[in-house]
Amino acid sequence: MAFTKDDFKSKIEEIQSQSWYKNPIGFGIARVDRGQLNPEKVLQATYPVMNWEENYGSAAVFLNALKEAGVEVDTSKSELVATVSDVFLTSCIEVFRPYIPEAKGAEHKNVQVISQLASLPIDSGFTAEDYKVVFIFEDEAPQSAETVYLKLYALSTGKAKLRGLNLNGAFGQLENCAWVGNQPIELDWLRENEIALKLSGKYPSITKVDKFPQFLDHVIPADNTRILDTNKVRMGAQLAAGTTVMPGAAYINFNAGTEGAVMVEGRISSSAKVGKGSDVGGGASILGVLSGTDGVPVTIGDNTLLGANSCTGTSIADGCILDAGVTILPGTKITLSEKAVAALKEINPDKEIKELMRGMDFQGVNGVHFRQNSVTGQIIAMRSTREVKLNEDLH
Amino acid sequence: MAFTKDDFKSKIEEIQSQSWYKNPIGFGIARVDRGQLNPEKVLQATYPVMNWEENYGSAAVFLNALKEAGVEVDTSKSELVATVSDVFLTSCIEVFRPYIPEAKGAEHKNVQVISQLASLPIDSGFTAEDYKVVFIFEDEAPQSAETVYLKLYALSTGKAKLRGLNLNGAFGQLENCAWVGNQPIELDWLRENEIALKLSGKYPSITKVDKFPQFLDHVIPADNTRILDTNKVRMGAQLAAGTTVMPGAAYINFNAGTEGAVMVEGRISSSAKVGKGSDVGGGASILGVLSGTDGVPVTIGDNTLLGANSCTGTSIADGCILDAGVTILPGTKITLSEKAVAALKEINPDKEIKELMRGMDFQGVNGVHFRQNSVTGQIIAMRSTREVKLNEDLH
Amino acid sequence: MAFTKDDFKSKIEEIQSQSWYKNPIGFGIARVDRGQLNPEKVLQATYPVMNWEENYGSAAVFLNALKEAGVEVDTSKSELVATVSDVFLTSCIEVFRPYIPEAKGAEHKNVQVISQLASLPIDSGFTAEDYKVVFIFEDEAPQSAETVYLKLYALSTGKAKLRGLNLNGAFGQLENCAWVGNQPIELDWLRENEIALKLSGKYPSITKVDKFPQFLDHVIPADNTRILDTNKVRMGAQLAAGTTVMPGAAYINFNAGTEGAVMVEGRISSSAKVGKGSDVGGGASILGVLSGTDGVPVTIGDNTLLGANSCTGTSIADGCILDAGVTILPGTKITLSEKAVAALKEINPDKEIKELMRGMDFQGVNGVHFRQNSVTGQIIAMRSTREVKLNEDLH
Repeated sequence: MAFTKDDFKSKIEEIQSQSWYKNPIGFGIARVDRGQLNPEKVLQATYPVMNWEENYGSAAVFLNALKEAGVEVDTSKSELVATVSDVFLTSCIEVFRPYIPEAKGAEHKNVQVISQLASLPIDSGFTAEDYKVVFIFEDEAPQSAETVYLKLYALSTGKAKLRGLNLNGAFGQLENCAWVGNQPIELDWLRENEIALKLSGKYPSITKVDKFPQFLDHVIPADNTRILDTNKVRMGAQLAAGTTVMPGAAYINFNAGTEGAVMVEGRISSSAKVGKGSDVGGGASILGVLSGTDGVPVTIGDNTLLGANSCTGTSIADGCILDAGVTILPGTKITLSEKAVAALKEINPDKEIKELMRGMDFQGVNGVHFRQNSVTGQIIAMRSTREVKLNEDLH
Repeated sequence: MAFTKDDFKSKIEEIQSQSWYKNPIGFGIARVDRGQLNPEKVLQATYPVMNWEENYGSAAVFLNALKEAGVEVDTSKSELVATVSDVFLTSCIEVFRPYIPEAKGAEHKNVQVISQLASLPIDSGFTAEDYKVVFIFEDEAPQSAETVYLKLYALSTGKAKLRGLNLNGAFGQLENCAWVGNQPIELDWLRENEIALKLSGKYPSITKVDKFPQFLDHVIPADNTRILDTNKVRMGAQLAAGTTVMPGAAYINFNAGTEGAVMVEGRISSSAKVGKGSDVGGGASILGVLSGTDGVPVTIGDNTLLGANSCTGTSIADGCILDAGVTILPGTKITLSEKAVAALKEINPDKEIKELMRGMDFQGVNGVHFRQNSVTGQIIAMRSTREVKLNEDLH
Repeated sequence: MAFTKDDFKSKIEEIQSQSWYKNPIGFGIARVDRGQLNPEKVLQATYPVMNWEENYGSAAVFLNALKEAGVEVDTSKSELVATVSDVFLTSCIEVFRPYIPEAKGAEHKNVQVISQLASLPIDSGFTAEDYKVVFIFEDEAPQSAETVYLKLYALSTGKAKLRGLNLNGAFGQLENCAWVGNQPIELDWLRENEIALKLSGKYPSITKVDKFPQFLDHVIPADNTRILDTNKVRMGAQLAAGTTVMPGAAYINFNAGTEGAVMVEGRISSSAKVGKGSDVGGGASILGVLSGTDGVPVTIGDNTLLGANSCTGTSIADGCILDAGVTILPGTKITLSEKAVAALKEINPDKEIKELMRGMDFQGVNGVHFRQNSVTGQIIAMRSTREVKLNEDLH
């Protein structure tokens, strides 16, 4: 049993050297909301601490404790979901013991989770069944609501890259629920209780019906990040520090988001991402892979302005301007003057710039200003006035 | 008195054969929220069960019980709103008695309402004045908040057809209130109590100010329907099963909605409807009858795509595509190539297809792709690549 | 000491004649929400009553009471924020005494504030530190959260004109918080308590993260004003009576709003304003001074229609129509026919109307219909069919 930090390290090494052991990609302990009628259904999984390619010592402690609690631990599978038990907690506490006194604030958060779980009051309203130990060993299609949530956490905390995780079939693992803020309710439970609830004035104020919760139900953003309406950002979205999401037409779907401080007044559809210093204008639409963009996810570069009510279905590079109200789809024919061709070639020496290009031809072409000539109706491209910061690795 | 189901049937026949009796269009028992300052004002009516062209046996029981309770029942008027009383409840229970034991779950919901009303605890906070028996005998302009709500329920539960009900003057029957979720508060009550509430930290979190509640305050959607932000769907909207309403720029007003599974990321204005398999793209606008469409309500057919930030003020048929960012109003001049005319004639043999058409000329024309030529600025129409399922009744 | 109303008037005159005294621009007593971790941080200031260029008698009573309570009152500074104390309250009550019996409803609201503060129960959960007496003497850049809020109240109650106040640096005086409805929470407090809150099922339902609250958290709108989603209107916005804000893509930022009954289904960005009888269509964007309008705030006149998904970055006058989907920026070239020039000159005799104009040239030009010719793609202007009510002062 581990009583000193050295003992702890020896114990971890011993566990990690065993043949069954494998470092997980991600893991954590979740409190789950289960169905009011069907307690076997997991409606939501809430992770106080989520580990992603980190904290392998704690992973070893948890996996070892699960084995001691009699759980079958098969690390050759892509994931593992097990119920917390007293034996599991006792085993973790024995190994974590030297760290318990200093497990406060930002220190030893997995130890804090175990300590607090072990000291939850009996009348908390929760049972052991409400807490799950969750591991992902391979990034395959998730097989449970708990691992879908673990991946959404990885995206929303910025620990995994946008578009970097296998989310195939994720929708199928989640229940469609009515939500009262961050509390999910089975639709069938509402149906069974509708008459009694309505007559007694206790029918709940449903805030939405969906399979996903919101980003702010689970993730605390950076100090300089602002989300003016929680409904505008789905869990699984990623917002770099300094991003502001306004409450008009904005929306950021899961597996989409920003890579730096971005002003978001428009839609960032699933799989789309926007670079630092860019501005998604009021009502601007960045199309997702399922919405007319031929399966190629759209990337907006750094320091680019998408004007109000503009729409883009193809990637746009750094330092560009898409004028308010202008739409650029992959197949849109765009006309350039001789002067525009020359000016764009100057800052994009490696790109082919011609007098007639398609929207999709502008991938990686920096400093473009897309406009509609208001006298001829023609969609044109010219050199933008936005600053383009050259990629230092290339020049 | 009815003690067997046969007795019940005889009783119903006896009531229905009386000269004063008339089958209602719709009826139900509502719990009403009344003004905090002016209890005569009905701020909201909540129906645990709403009957529309159905359950005439229960209607007969209710009407008979009202007469026994001394209420003047005049079925020659368009509607009736009466307060629940002990005599009313007792009369209903006597007739419903053979059904009370089996009135559970989805069975005999009107009987459940009566049973639960009769057994409401004295300290429920409600009085008989808070429950109303409501009937609509003729679809005329509603004369009360209770019947406005009954009609909104009929629309939102899909029991009445969109555009099928007389809602003239409905706004005038509803009070503009502050809402805290599903609880309405008189604005005057807030004004009278503002100082005390604010100083004591009890000023409520107002979620909106409007005459209408939200769809989700009253209606439980189908299992595969999703509404990602309750504010996006007003009570009185109709959402067919499988419809998804996203939280960006989407909105569905009352007396508007979908007729099949539809992805809604744009606006469906009052009186507009969208067919099954269609997609209302991010920020797309379908105009309502009061917003520039010459009073002709707009219908979007099946399997049609309205691109992001597109706008339509005229009906569009099945299997069409309106490109992202393109606007088609009734008077918009649209140019077709010879090839486009031929291709569209092929699948629309009964329609007049010409080389220059107005937006309004496309009503009933299937398989059209509306685009703006990005070289000439011209709005054009051609044969779309969307599948058009031919109407089997016509071919 | 004042015991009669005459005594009160004498007392006020005496105070106001003293050399240190100065009438404030605005003042009021606020209850402040302070940081859960850092009680020195003011997260929100709530004014039960806000005075703006009015009620100088109450101002004199408050300033005199602050001096009697030992607060340094320096009216040569731009603002004053002091904590409420027993001495302050006692002094105010003595002078207000003749008005206390009649201080009810709409009468003597500042007296009501003092009375209620003096009688707050000891177990209210608040201390004297939670109440601040706040004065603005000069309209300079605000130096405190309390005076930022006082100015936002002045704008949102319509007592100060839009664009009429110095809000420089206002953002810097406000804390970015998580909000649960109208309750602000420090992000650091959430971080410190995340594990315990999540494990115990008590993690709050965050409704937004921002520096500003919403309009409806502080201001009661007129009876005929409607805001269908509280997130759509930021504190500091101004909504004239009769304005309706729909829940689709609408948004009204602080220091922006309406000057009469306006239907708002689009975005009114910071510093923009819209005249009476106008209609901001679904998804329409009115750009703000920081979004591509060259620093000139945009004004929309009376009785003007901005069509769905239109966008304007320059002022548009009375009785105009901007067609759905059309964008007019300051530099947009707009073509007019001879007939259009003549028709517009007729109702705009003092304006220069030409066959080719820029968007910015239409400032003050009434009765214009902006369209895109769907055959040529050209942006054109013609005489609108909207009624233009002539300015009676000019004709």
